[in-house]
Amino acid sequence: MTLDKNWYTEIYPADGAAFSLKVKKKLHDVQTPYQHIEVYETEGFGTLMTIDGLVMVTDRDNFIYHEMMSHPVLFTHANPKNVLIIGGGDCGTLREVLKHPGVVQAQQVDIDEGVTRAAELHFPDLVDSNSDPRAELYFDDGIKWVADAAPGSYDIIIVDSTDPVGPAEGLFSEAFFRSCHRALRDGGLIVQQSESPLFHQKIINDMHSAMRRAGFDSTLTLNFPQCSYPSGWWSATLAGKGMAPTSFREQDAARKPFKTLYYNAAIHRAAMALPEFMLR
Amino acid sequence: MTLDKNWYTEIYPADGAAFSLKVKKKLHDVQTPYQHIEVYETEGFGTLMTIDGLVMVTDRDNFIYHEMMSHPVLFTHANPKNVLIIGGGDCGTLREVLKHPGVVQAQQVDIDEGVTRAAELHFPDLVDSNSDPRAELYFDDGIKWVADAAPGSYDIIIVDSTDPVGPAEGLFSEAFFRSCHRALRDGGLIVQQSESPLFHQKIINDMHSAMRRAGFDSTLTLNFPQCSYPSGWWSATLAGKGMAPTSFREQDAARKPFKTLYYNAAIHRAAMALPEFMLR
Repeated sequence: MTLDKNWYTEIYPADGAAFSLKVKKKLHDVQTPYQHIEVYETEGFGTLMTIDGLVMVTDRDNFIYHEMMSHPVLFTHANPKNVLIIGGGDCGTLREVLKHPGVVQAQQVDIDEGVTRAAELHFPDLVDSNSDPRAELYFDDGIKWVADAAPGSYDIIIVDSTDPVGPAEGLFSEAFFRSCHRALRDGGLIVQQSESPLFHQKIINDMHSAMRRAGFDSTLTLNFPQCSYPSGWWSATLAGKGMAPTSFREQDAARKPFKTLYYNAAIHRAAMALPEFMLR
Repeated sequence: MTLDKNWYTEIYPADGAAFSLKVKKKLHDVQTPYQHIEVYETEGFGTLMTIDGLVMVTDRDNFIYHEMMSHPVLFTHANPKNVLIIGGGDCGTLREVLKHPGVVQAQQVDIDEGVTRAAELHFPDLVDSNSDPRAELYFDDGIKWVADAAPGSYDIIIVDSTDPVGPAEGLFSEAFFRSCHRALRDGGLIVQQSESPLFHQKIINDMHSAMRRAGFDSTLTLNFPQCSYPSGWWSATLAGKGMAPTSFREQDAARKPFKTLYYNAAIHRAAMALPEFMLR
């Protein structure tokens, strides 16, 4: 089988694999100072946003990623009030964070306003909570933002970034994690998307090392399916400042006062289970 | 990006998606009386076998599927001795089953000898245990095999089939599950691959219904990543005859006397966790 020009394809060169979605039409094509943002209407996955040719969000499967970047870390913290999201310009993670009634402030800092403008136009569900009075949207350099933050100003930092190339590369470094550690209160947590367990084992291992060198006491990788990302299997890595992310508020998660499509308490526990090859 | 002729592509038409692997060369191309079997050497996934154009096995990720089709059901049964595998011609599931020292007989019944011959030539790791004295390989119609089996002759039936089209369609029917129920001893279990949680929710639901109508008391779906299958996320559905597959021999699984790459006791528990959208 070959794919004609009606398909969008993302190639994973290092792994000799590719994922494609059949497109009906292109809805958006903007080159910002930072990135090339495109939005397509697809046959089977609803609306698709790509950045520099890589899948960022589809209507059909973004719920898994956004829920797993937010609810596990929020139910791991004892009482999260101040949340910082670095990246996350599509606003899907922000929406999930704001489902937690205890959150009093959620700042989103994405370097590229173009991502949020595209989401406002083409992903109305994701920007649904942008008018929540607890939401603050900034378009700025996340690395500098965290470095400049007052010590102990956040309970949770969520790093919802693109892959570790281009603008996001610095978000995978020890120096950045050190800034995050300083900006967190005691008992605070960071979570960073950490790529595919099948394709990017080295990125995950390096992230654990960098987080621990940066001062975090305990780290934990969660894994979950994500059809439209490389290998269809993804991960998020948590690190705690003076606390271990290996247990969470299970009763609160079981009685959460909001709806989800993927996350629940059993899924949270399940996401912590690592396959044999990752334990070695 | 477009893919040139050096890529093998499987299209999932109903979902407007496709998965591709870059190939170095074709190693095998045989039309059997049943199916079209091809084997490729790929750039990043080792050897790839396709049947009628659909991915069956790759060197890189078959371990997850084969381990999840075997170890959960074997560690759920109290003391499995006689195991029947329907399909499974690549012999990877057979190899995993034979890792259990308590198994005294493992019959594999695949309708198409061509699959096993191709595996012998191109997947030496998978056929590694074919000379085990407990292994019996038959090339025959699995539906008829089970219908003709003496009542209560097996502890476990593993249905390691292709998708529910073509030769495998009957393996998803109530009539087949009824034959399996009769062929199992009390306390016996069946497990059948049940496609993608994201793409094939109806197939999974229909399988539960068909298994229960066929006489099984209790059913359970496990889910796990499987990069090279549609959506990168796969499932296996278990059903028990006079027993519930919802608990398993956790201590035995934790102390298993053999190596795995994916399966362990925590992964077994994790695979039982269903996302919110599947619980509805």
